[in-house]
Amino acid sequence: MTTENPPVGIIMGSTSDWPTMKLAADILDELGVPYETRIVSAHRTPDRLWEYGKTAVERGLKVIIAGAGGAAHLPGMMASKTRVPVVGVPVQTRALSGVDSLYSIVQMPKGFPVATMAIGEAGAANAGLMAAGILATSDADLAARLDQWRADLAASIPEAPQ
Amino acid sequence: MTTENPPVGIIMGSTSDWPTMKLAADILDELGVPYETRIVSAHRTPDRLWEYGKTAVERGLKVIIAGAGGAAHLPGMMASKTRVPVVGVPVQTRALSGVDSLYSIVQMPKGFPVATMAIGEAGAANAGLMAAGILATSDADLAARLDQWRADLAASIPEAPQ
Amino acid sequence: MTTENPPVGIIMGSTSDWPTMKLAADILDELGVPYETRIVSAHRTPDRLWEYGKTAVERGLKVIIAGAGGAAHLPGMMASKTRVPVVGVPVQTRALSGVDSLYSIVQMPKGFPVATMAIGEAGAANAGLMAAGILATSDADLAARLDQWRADLAASIPEAPQ
Amino acid sequence: MTTENPPVGIIMGSTSDWPTMKLAADILDELGVPYETRIVSAHRTPDRLWEYGKTAVERGLKVIIAGAGGAAHLPGMMASKTRVPVVGVPVQTRALSGVDSLYSIVQMPKGFPVATMAIGEAGAANAGLMAAGILATSDADLAARLDQWRADLAASIPEAPQ
Amino acid sequence: MTTENPPVGIIMGSTSDWPTMKLAADILDELGVPYETRIVSAHRTPDRLWEYGKTAVERGLKVIIAGAGGAAHLPGMMASKTRVPVVGVPVQTRALSGVDSLYSIVQMPKGFPVATMAIGEAGAANAGLMAAGILATSDADLAARLDQWRADLAASIPEAPQ
Amino acid sequence: MTTENPPVGIIMGSTSDWPTMKLAADILDELGVPYETRIVSAHRTPDRLWEYGKTAVERGLKVIIAGAGGAAHLPGMMASKTRVPVVGVPVQTRALSGVDSLYSIVQMPKGFPVATMAIGEAGAANAGLMAAGILATSDADLAARLDQWRADLAASIPEAPQ
Amino acid sequence: MTTENPPVGIIMGSTSDWPTMKLAADILDELGVPYETRIVSAHRTPDRLWEYGKTAVERGLKVIIAGAGGAAHLPGMMASKTRVPVVGVPVQTRALSGVDSLYSIVQMPKGFPVATMAIGEAGAANAGLMAAGILATSDADLAARLDQWRADLAASIPEAPQ
Amino acid sequence: MTTENPPVGIIMGSTSDWPTMKLAADILDELGVPYETRIVSAHRTPDRLWEYGKTAVERGLKVIIAGAGGAAHLPGMMASKTRVPVVGVPVQTRALSGVDSLYSIVQMPKGFPVATMAIGEAGAANAGLMAAGILATSDADLAARLDQWRADLAASIPEAPQ
Repeated sequence: MTTENPPVGIIMGSTSDWPTMKLAADILDELGVPYETRIVSAHRTPDRLWEYGKTAVERGLKVIIAGAGGAAHLPGMMASKTRVPVVGVPVQTRALSGVDSLYSIVQMPKGFPVATMAIGEAGAANAGLMAAGILATSDADLAARLDQWRADLAASIPEAPQ
Repeated sequence: MTTENPPVGIIMGSTSDWPTMKLAADILDELGVPYETRIVSAHRTPDRLWEYGKTAVERGLKVIIAGAGGAAHLPGMMASKTRVPVVGVPVQTRALSGVDSLYSIVQMPKGFPVATMAIGEAGAANAGLMAAGILATSDADLAARLDQWRADLAASIPEAPQ
Repeated sequence: MTTENPPVGIIMGSTSDWPTMKLAADILDELGVPYETRIVSAHRTPDRLWEYGKTAVERGLKVIIAGAGGAAHLPGMMASKTRVPVVGVPVQTRALSGVDSLYSIVQMPKGFPVATMAIGEAGAANAGLMAAGILATSDADLAARLDQWRADLAASIPEAPQ
Repeated sequence: MTTENPPVGIIMGSTSDWPTMKLAADILDELGVPYETRIVSAHRTPDRLWEYGKTAVERGLKVIIAGAGGAAHLPGMMASKTRVPVVGVPVQTRALSGVDSLYSIVQMPKGFPVATMAIGEAGAANAGLMAAGILATSDADLAARLDQWRADLAASIPEAPQ
Repeated sequence: MTTENPPVGIIMGSTSDWPTMKLAADILDELGVPYETRIVSAHRTPDRLWEYGKTAVERGLKVIIAGAGGAAHLPGMMASKTRVPVVGVPVQTRALSGVDSLYSIVQMPKGFPVATMAIGEAGAANAGLMAAGILATSDADLAARLDQWRADLAASIPEAPQ
Repeated sequence: MTTENPPVGIIMGSTSDWPTMKLAADILDELGVPYETRIVSAHRTPDRLWEYGKTAVERGLKVIIAGAGGAAHLPGMMASKTRVPVVGVPVQTRALSGVDSLYSIVQMPKGFPVATMAIGEAGAANAGLMAAGILATSDADLAARLDQWRADLAASIPEAPQ
Repeated sequence: MTTENPPVGIIMGSTSDWPTMKLAADILDELGVPYETRIVSAHRTPDRLWEYGKTAVERGLKVIIAGAGGAAHLPGMMASKTRVPVVGVPVQTRALSGVDSLYSIVQMPKGFPVATMAIGEAGAANAGLMAAGILATSDADLAARLDQWRADLAASIPEAPQ
Repeated sequence: MTTENPPVGIIMGSTSDWPTMKLAADILDELGVPYETRIVSAHRTPDRLWEYGKTAVERGLKVIIAGAGGAAHLPGMMASKTRVPVVGVPVQTRALSGVDSLYSIVQMPKGFPVATMAIGEAGAANAGLMAAGILATSDADLAARLDQWRADLAASIPEAPQ
């Protein structure tokens, strides 16, 4: 769901991150939360990162979901440019399976937190849920939809595996 | 700073986690954000965890900061009991240096995000900042104080190391 | 083999864990030990976990085999709810190959042991054998069957690889 | 507590493991479970290991707690010599912090489970509790004492860290 | 090449190790070194391990190559039973890629060295070369053949990749 | 040695990195290579990083040595802002010993190389030598001094340890 | 692009490294930087390594790119034989995914830096860029081409993933 | 014990390795095996390494024990220069605890085995025992002394830890 000034921005370092990050968008769609998607590479388009971070508050962004792999600098650099909460998704990588992404995102120094999720698709879906949970702290309707989503998840679990 | 129904709860699995988690409290004090502190052990006091999670919304909690070490189940179990955003702090451990805590907190399955911070003290301080950042999405005064805190941090950096 | 009040419960966090956990069931079938299988998700069905743990003793369970992957909280949380011995199976995961599962299961704090097995299928099969070994401490017939199973295993090894 | 034919044997590869393994003995003392302690080195005294394993059942042992560090072969080799359940404690090591001990103990092949505990002192204490839990499956008095021990532990947790 | 009392024994824990260990045999064939191959499982056939180790010297074995995976106890246990040099090959495993095998083989305590090779096929081939190198310390003909093998290897390297 | 427009800039994320990074400065002093030292934090002073990178070429910098720890974004972000070669030094960290720093610095995506050195002090000293080696590709005098430095190092090695 | 005395040498331990190292050659082709390619195995052709290192300066080499996997000794040994800057590429390996290659290349002792790149193909491409960046410190035309290459890369990034 | 043409050479990369490597010498002293000790740095004194390797056979060396830390190239490079069996000792390091040393020594490519021992002091002592074991394959007197050493070790183990 996209609107002009959505509360959530989903950014990623490369189009190759989209198959992972799409799961964050899917969750936001399920919960009726508007969002925008952007390619913002910390290394290839640092000025775009700068601009995105500097205008985040005035553009009405409430949460930024940032996915990146390897020396994943995007989430942390975005956290340095704006006080808008940044949720980081470590994308799985070929040689190091995303441990490099995880360490580069989670081990931020004092001053610049990144809300780090699990490596890969589960992490991306959870980034959507975390964004919704943050917005729900001041949006009772969304809170109710989130409660329902969680209840539906619990109700979907069968009693036994066979 | 403590008030009757504070928006932030700082919980931890053991009193031995307090020297780390105190850094979250310190940040919240600096930013003027009320909070409460509780020992809630996932394994030793599971019923306390249940009660805390079930009443979190009605008690007015907006963010829960949870610190734990080793097989650190507290943040993830709290995330399963409430939609209030949970910020997880992996406490450093003796044998595995907190890699066990990190994996146990960050690798949550789809449905139950924990906003994971860095291992140890930097992570605890950042948990306080993340909580403030979440509250600031709907509190302009706190947003201004957070912006000032960030500006002060930047201004405190000297030009050269010598 | 299923009976009304079996001595062994095999629980797992998700139906996707069944291909692994089935190897525990297979061993119990070979040894003639009755068991039940249940989906009990620590995060999605925490109340089911609570109920299962609280009633384990009265329902006659002597051993609980619990398999889970990632931030694998199921075995440890079950160990916090009942004194019935819990045997934990770290299910292999995509990004971290089950090291996350292993650390989340084995690194339990003092007070709540989980008898942790190897990652994946060998671990699941061994969970069945460990359950049988525990029951055999007070069941001479089962002890004899277990001795025979072990003797058969030794006898099945050829002299040379070619 | 020592008796002639105790149900629990605590064995370890070296006297240097005793400061860790003593925590298992302490728990058994608290719970009133008799035990014996032995140095049994898989590499230096393999015949002693053989003898201990072969006579375990007839000597009345119900659980064997085995601690070792590095290429920790003692628990797994004992599991190959007897059907008595073996609880393994990975002793912390200097270079690899006990990750070597953990992998050598937990990654057993199908047929020979070792109930692996956490690295170091918490793991040793939990080995005592696991042994008690196994014995309690057929000893109602011990089960009651174990329940009380667990209740006391829960009751010892303060409400808040300060 | 097989003879009645070969100087080299190639042993492994399971027939599934043979595709790896065959590379050791291939090298010994190339170098004209007689050997025997045996399945000797530390856990499933401990008595066979005992017998093999105790009779190694009298049977004329000069080097024992032992391959195993996971909690790979075979090389280290063989080193405890005989002074014949043991060359260990960590077989690659599914979940931990052979890091478990490597740690279980290489981290031997003082008194019982295992000459550990690389994980997998390169390690198995090198085990054959190490065995030949050891025998060559007292066999001038083999030394000459080994020198030739090494010279041929160097001569086989092209100048450029294209 | 400092001059107005030195060819080497030594930058680091925090004054706490100086005890490590000083070893780079020491080597440059030994080799008579002028340099400047600056605190440039990727997260706390991103605009300073931007400015430093954008003006690097015009200010005459030929090599930039960048040290950082944890989610060490400084070297990689500098490499995105200038074509001047960046030599990265992973500073040792408390919980993860600098593995986090190493992965965050070395695992750069295609387009933005960072010449990564060893973790800690040896890496910092080598960063100085790498900078000198790069300058020496077009400075015959420095090349001679570097050759001498290397010869002196070789000459300083004793024959035997005792 | 090949010329008689090219400024860049691309060397690798084995022809099996060429699919990775070709990416370094491709970048140099794109940037118009002449280079040569050689198989130089540290272990199989140590004399070739010696010769290559000793004659590097007189043959006009300004940068040596060295790729190797496993116990990857080639980059470090080349750095010990010449002051020409060595750029190391850790080739991905089967069991350890290139972590072995990375540690063997990056953890050089004081005196002998190797400019280590990321594991695998991204690292090889970046080795080409690092070589170009080093040459560009004294070649204004190449500097301009490198600036253009970097600008083209930035311009190739789309605004959004969909 | 030193003689003119000893069968064992103990070499190491730096005098700082001597406190570790001394344990190899101590074992050889206990067993009455003559040896020499040398500083041979793969990087700082590559020509000394070349010379040592090329003359090893003619000088009568039967086994070379090589210790090194970090990017530990000494054992592997020595194995490339001589067919004399090389026993490698990974010296413990500050940041990576010797995992870097271990991987650099053990992960040798096909053709050049290094008999790798445990990290640190136990590994150094075992290197002495492995050297003795190799020599004992053609020295009955030494074989008897080694058997006695092993019997004494077994006899030194107490029955119980208390």
